[in-house]
This record gives sequence, C-alpha cells and structure tokens, in this order.
Amino acid sequence: MNSMDFINLGQYLKEKQKLVNRYLGLIFRKFDQRRELIKAMDHSLMAGGKRLRPILSIAAAEACKKDFLYALPACCAIEMIHTYSLIHDDLPAMDNDDLRRGLPTCHKKFCEATAILAGDALLTHAFNILSEPELVFEKYPDTETRINLISKISRAAGIQGMVEGQMLDMQSFLPEQNDNLARLKKIHALKTGKMITVSVEAGAKSVKADPERIKKLGVYAEKVGLAFQVVDDILNIEGDPEIMGKSAGSDALNDKMTFPAIIGLDESKKFAKILIDDAIDSISQFDKAASPLRAIAGYVINRDH
Amino acid sequence: MNSMDFINLGQYLKEKQKLVNRYLGLIFRKFDQRRELIKAMDHSLMAGGKRLRPILSIAAAEACKKDFLYALPACCAIEMIHTYSLIHDDLPAMDNDDLRRGLPTCHKKFCEATAILAGDALLTHAFNILSEPELVFEKYPDTETRINLISKISRAAGIQGMVEGQMLDMQSFLPEQNDNLARLKKIHALKTGKMITVSVEAGAKSVKADPERIKKLGVYAEKVGLAFQVVDDILNIEGDPEIMGKSAGSDALNDKMTFPAIIGLDESKKFAKILIDDAIDSISQFDKAASPLRAIAGYVINRDH
Repeated sequence: MNSMDFINLGQYLKEKQKLVNRYLGLIFRKFDQRRELIKAMDHSLMAGGKRLRPILSIAAAEACKKDFLYALPACCAIEMIHTYSLIHDDLPAMDNDDLRRGLPTCHKKFCEATAILAGDALLTHAFNILSEPELVFEKYPDTETRINLISKISRAAGIQGMVEGQMLDMQSFLPEQNDNLARLKKIHALKTGKMITVSVEAGAKSVKADPERIKKLGVYAEKVGLAFQVVDDILNIEGDPEIMGKSAGSDALNDKMTFPAIIGLDESKKFAKILIDDAIDSISQFDKAASPLRAIAGYVINRDH
Repeated sequence: MNSMDFINLGQYLKEKQKLVNRYLGLIFRKFDQRRELIKAMDHSLMAGGKRLRPILSIAAAEACKKDFLYALPACCAIEMIHTYSLIHDDLPAMDNDDLRRGLPTCHKKFCEATAILAGDALLTHAFNILSEPELVFEKYPDTETRINLISKISRAAGIQGMVEGQMLDMQSFLPEQNDNLARLKKIHALKTGKMITVSVEAGAKSVKADPERIKKLGVYAEKVGLAFQVVDDILNIEGDPEIMGKSAGSDALNDKMTFPAIIGLDESKKFAKILIDDAIDSISQFDKAASPLRAIAGYVINRDH
C-alpha cells in the first residue's frame, strides 16, 4: 500500500456501519415493534455484526467513483440474507449454537419456531427491499438494474450458492471424501464466497459501473472471501478467546475440516497472504478511490476477530 | 352457474396441474439430481399438491382473456414459496408433522437440517425464477411487471403476510385472546389468504390486465381463500379420513382454534357458502372466460379433501 492509499480504516468501517445500520433501522421502523416476529428479526439483525458485506458493496461503488448511496438497497438486502443464514445455521438441527457475538442466538432468545420464521421473513424481505426500495431509500438503481441484482443475489444465496454450501458443510464429515482441500475450497466458495462476491459486484452494478471493472472487482471479492475463511480457521487456533467471543480450538475439538487441519498452520498463513496479494493485484488499475477496498483486504488478513 | 359457464373442472384442473408440473420439472432439470438438496426440494415440490395457487393464477389470466402462458413464471414461483412454507411448517419445532399427502414430510424423509435448507432454497429460487425467467420459460412478463410481481409476492409471503400468519397461528392458544373469530380470520387472512390473493392478482398482472379487473379478482381471491380455510376446518370434523389422508377430528384433539370450534358447525357451513357467493358475485361482470374461476369457487366448497 503506498501513501496515496492511506485511509483511516477504523473510522471508515465505523461510518459505513453506522450508515448501514441507519437504513436497516428505517426498514424495520415501519413495523409494529411489539410483534414477536419483528423483535426476533431485530435481535439478530442488530446484534452488532461487522457489516462486512454491505461495506464491501459501498467500497466497490466508491472504487468506481460513483454515488454509493445507490448501493444501499443491495447492501441492506444482502445483510438481511446474511443474517437469516446465521439464524438458520445456529439452529439445533444445524450447528446448534447458543451464542453469537456474545448474545444468545435467535432460537435461544426466542424459540426455535420463531427463529425459523424470523430467518424466513428476513430472506423474503430482502427481495422486497430490492423490488420496492422507494419505500425506504432516497436513491436506488433503476428497474432493469434491480432485476439483475435480484437474479445475481438469488443465485449467490440459493441452490448453487450459500444454501448448497451449508449442505456440503454439514456433509463434510462423511468419510468417502478424498481431495479434502478441493472440497474445503468448494464449501467456502459456496457457503460464504458467493455472497461476498455478489456483495462487491452488487455495489458496482448498483452504480452502473462498466463490466470490465465489475469483473476485476469480482476476482478481488473471490480472493478476499476465501482469505477471510482461511484467517477464520487460523484465528480459531491462535486467536484470543476474549476477543473472539468463542473458545479457541473449538474447530479441532469438533473435528471440523479446516485449512490448518488439511495443509497445516504455516501453509494456511502463506495461502491467506497469497490470496490477499492476488486480491489487491486484481484491482491494481483502480486509482485511490479503491483505497478502502485495499485497506479492507489488509484488514481481513490482520484482524484479531 | 348458468349453462354458459359449463366447464369440465376435473379435466381443467388436471390439464393445468400437468402444465405447472412440467415447468416446475424444467426448472429443476438444470440441477444435478443426485444432490441431496435437490432431492429434498423435489420430494416436497413433486409430492402431488393440488396446485391450487398456480391454477388460480392461470384461471385469472384466462378470465382477462389473455395468453396465460405469461403467468407461468409467477405460478411456479408461488408454488415454490407455498411448498417451502409447508416444509418449514411441518418441522418438529412448528407443527411436527410426519406425513403430508400420505408421504413422509421433508424432515422425516431426509433430516431436519436438510428440510430447513430445502425450504430456504425453494424460497430463494422463487425470486430467481421471477428475475431471470428466460432461462426456463418461452413467455414471461416484461421487467417492470416482474419487479412489481416480486414486490407483491414478497409482501404476501413475508413480514406482513404468510410468515406473520404462521407466527400468529403458533401463538393462537395464548389465553389472553378474546375476540377469537376476528383473530382466527386474521390468522387465515395472513397465513393463507394473502398468498391465494396474490396468486390470482399475479396471474392477472402477468398478462397486464387492467387495474379495475385486478381489483375485482382480488376480492374474489380473498373470499375464496377464506372459504377454503373454513371448509378445511369443516372437513377435519366431517371428512372421510381415507380421502383426507389424515384422521378426522385431529383439530379438536389438538385443541386447535377453528371456525366450527368458535361459531359452530352449521354457522361455519353458512359462512363458507356466503363467502363463495360473494366471490362469484365479485366477478359477475366477467364473461364466460371466467368460468374456470367460478367453477373453482364451487369446487372449494364442495370438495371432499
């Protein structure tokens, strides 16, 4: 990173988180806050997520030197889909997690049925936001662009994307698998990679960036998305439990398929580094408007939680 | 019904079911049939549903004397959403049903996690179908119409519609309720009414019917939808368990809030009759192209399962 690229990433992330939270708040302000369904959706949506996906959307729009406010409907839709996936993944029938970010998971705070429905409603409402953004947002992409966003986001979230990734992840203990590294990469590419990639692309598409730029941003996103997972696995071994909000070594205890388990800790670190270098390379022709994207790539590999 | 209106409803339903099934088959043919997720989705989607919602869409398009093939993307999307809702409603945390239409429910045939994900994927893919129908359908509405369909369908299925209806239904045993009839009507209006109404409206919107007609069709649909539920409750008491595929009297055993339980069996029958008369009245200005809609209204009240 050269001096041209210097940005205060901490402040950038905070500002953009605040913006995304404000619009998520506006979306839900329209509903009766006493309703159990709304409470459950709100509990998980406002539980202090990093907002990585929407911030990537915004940073991608900025990298194309456009008004990133047009990306906010996609930002909110994507964050709602991400949140629904966490709620359903935490269910007893899936990962059976009691805590997320130090708070009780949705089914613990409410009940299983409510958590299933809160997830369903978040997923459904994500597509509502993209179909009638005028109810909440001042600026939004035209109809043609929004149909395209719905198509791309529904692909990334569904049968050939996130949902299939979760299916494969659940089946990842099956003994018949042999090429574990390829399999692990595939799981992550589907489970988290496609949604991270579509986040970046949706930001750029929302502001009608040219296809050549969108393509380069897509490569950036794929690399950053995979690096994020590799670093997650490393942090699970080396991270500070206090900062992580969960106990170190839980993956190994759960016999989970991870990068360190397959290629070793040192190789995993090298792999993450290569991915981030490739990500930054892929947007080398972007000028300093892409500084936030470059800084985020650096953050992904240097983060402590 | 006068002689002008005569149609062979049995044959009509069979033909349209076949058409809807053919397109649902085309949608899923694109995916690897050996995948567990696809198998689970297919199991529930192809379990012999009546296809009431898509057939209502088609009949509404026909009532407007337009080419109903334009309604097929909405038909399939709505049936996929209906199916996802059945899969999730059947889960142990919700209604805990082992059988549906004489077949094991999704979580019984596969597992709970797979059933949750199959539902999620069906819901997600419904919006994909509406955003890129050209991948499967020869005829489909223009972009503007499809964005409008996505907005209407996501409203009917989500926070202010079907999902909230299921939430209220789960809470319907709470003792603090007093006006039970109003409450029961509200539950049904949300849980099934909105999706049935949007089915009819989506059929008419898909063929660009004029708003006046769509409004009348909406009234028809609301009445038919509620009548459908009242008749369901009646059949639960009087129906033949062999034909119904479930034991009679199960609602009473489960202490379920039903129309007969609140207003009595005779009043329930009268109420259903009034609703159907109102439904047929609301489309009195439609000519014989609306015969299928009229016949379906008659079928709803005279059916034995």
